[in-house]
Amino acid sequence: MNDVSFSLVEQAVEVLRGVANITPVVSNRTIDGLSGAKVFFKCENFQRVGAFKFRGAYHAVARLMARNPTRTFATISSGNHAQGLALACRLLGVRAHVVMPKPYSFMKHQAVIDYGAIVHVAEDRIRAEVMLDKIVEDAGATIIHPFNDPLVIAGQGTIMVELLEQVSDLDIVLAPVGGGGLLSGLCVAAQACRPQMKIFACEPAGALDAVESVRQNCIVPMSFPHTIADGLRTSLGDRTLPILRQHLTGFFIVQEREIVEAMRFAYERLKLVIEPSSAVALAPLLREEPQLRGKRVAVVLTGGNAELSSLWRDLDAFLGL
Amino acid sequence: MNDVSFSLVEQAVEVLRGVANITPVVSNRTIDGLSGAKVFFKCENFQRVGAFKFRGAYHAVARLMARNPTRTFATISSGNHAQGLALACRLLGVRAHVVMPKPYSFMKHQAVIDYGAIVHVAEDRIRAEVMLDKIVEDAGATIIHPFNDPLVIAGQGTIMVELLEQVSDLDIVLAPVGGGGLLSGLCVAAQACRPQMKIFACEPAGALDAVESVRQNCIVPMSFPHTIADGLRTSLGDRTLPILRQHLTGFFIVQEREIVEAMRFAYERLKLVIEPSSAVALAPLLREEPQLRGKRVAVVLTGGNAELSSLWRDLDAFLGL
Repeated sequence: MNDVSFSLVEQAVEVLRGVANITPVVSNRTIDGLSGAKVFFKCENFQRVGAFKFRGAYHAVARLMARNPTRTFATISSGNHAQGLALACRLLGVRAHVVMPKPYSFMKHQAVIDYGAIVHVAEDRIRAEVMLDKIVEDAGATIIHPFNDPLVIAGQGTIMVELLEQVSDLDIVLAPVGGGGLLSGLCVAAQACRPQMKIFACEPAGALDAVESVRQNCIVPMSFPHTIADGLRTSLGDRTLPILRQHLTGFFIVQEREIVEAMRFAYERLKLVIEPSSAVALAPLLREEPQLRGKRVAVVLTGGNAELSSLWRDLDAFLGL
Repeated sequence: MNDVSFSLVEQAVEVLRGVANITPVVSNRTIDGLSGAKVFFKCENFQRVGAFKFRGAYHAVARLMARNPTRTFATISSGNHAQGLALACRLLGVRAHVVMPKPYSFMKHQAVIDYGAIVHVAEDRIRAEVMLDKIVEDAGATIIHPFNDPLVIAGQGTIMVELLEQVSDLDIVLAPVGGGGLLSGLCVAAQACRPQMKIFACEPAGALDAVESVRQNCIVPMSFPHTIADGLRTSLGDRTLPILRQHLTGFFIVQEREIVEAMRFAYERLKLVIEPSSAVALAPLLREEPQLRGKRVAVVLTGGNAELSSLWRDLDAFLGL
């Protein structure tokens, strides 16, 4: 297994320069008062495609194209990686096949099509794997895994490099954990740039595989996730588990009720649209975790692709439409 | 009538330093592509109390306190000025009376109470005036008008000073018009700092008093406003009308359908929570106004205190709560 080195992250910084957005860091007096911490929100909801996933996908596609004359890429994703890969391929002038297993949101499906990818709908995860194999065989596509890929992990690690340029003397970083690609990238970059910093993974109680996987040192599959945080329903991969085991300080486990409260706080007080997965990393601050008090804490707001149709329905009703 | 000079704005900058937030400027590739302009969003939705109104209210209270040993302030407002005055008075250690005429949102009512103001509910605007008179008589309160006040106008003008430090070579600024306090402040500051810049007022077709008032050079009352942009239902004042007449380049008139579409764009693409009044200033970019093409255009996103209860209702239903 090849490791993810910090030099790979540094290369990703170069590849993404001028392509990915340098996302702003937002602070807020109310959350500082409530949590007793000095909080910095790294707003990847302002990233292209509305989520950090663009970084890893673009880095992977660009690097693989430089190595081989690859003209076709493929992945399985119903979420932000699908959009990230679709936009990356459009920008780089190559073809993207995206297999989207049900259930997926209409908004994300449409966005992937709008970015010019060829979308294949699969009834479930198993059929999606079969479809992906066929695309690889027929179209000679190169697979870009959503998280279990060193190039993708290195792309996500650029968030930490940026963050440390934007905020000095950080003590702690909070990020949600799904497959662990984001957290692996953050860990690798922090180890090189600021090794004393603590990194916590935030996981929904309804999809508690990562905390178990790290404890048992084997990938505990996520069979029946029950959480609104749709981006966090996946298991870790064999690339991400060892990185998290080595570098993570610990976990914060978050209840569904807390996720919704954190979303509400983000919308009503921060004025930021975030998706449920991002709210998972905000929640520990709202319950005043003692380990965060008095610290300089960054929260990675991973994305803003939330389902808001109930809002527009009510506004249309107001207008009598 | 005393004018609002730029030196009053400069004094407001000093008074607000370290108290008001220096709000970030956000840009977005999608809006640039759609509008043909280079767009900069001045995010006053990230201001304290979630709206620019804090600037004017705090400046006015602080200055009046320095002049007289005034310990009690009062206003009529069901909107963001109510919250702005309430927080300003709390920070400055004085008492605030806020008369809120119906209808008002539960959220704003609660926020004003949370900031420690004494709230008086009035059945309508006329009864609110009577109540305000009585508060002035009984409590010796000093009235802080929401917009028709040089100190308030100067406070709002600090937005322009900040914006011009953040963005170079601006051609055009768009802002919504209600009573005209914000736009008056922007005009006074721009006249001093960047006189070649054009400033457009954006007004809902359902509350079309400002464009008429400026044309006729008299305050056309806003009798039956019909717009979702609740912050823009007021008429101009005798302080704001002459400033707008002298400095405004022109108006953009916006339909209700466009306001909702602009809100939707802000939430789904910009990932910013804005209130309907702010969407009024974004809408002209979405319909590709020819005057904006090729220009460097700033939009003042005035506030983010939107009603989102339909979202939380649906999320609660999802959780089975």
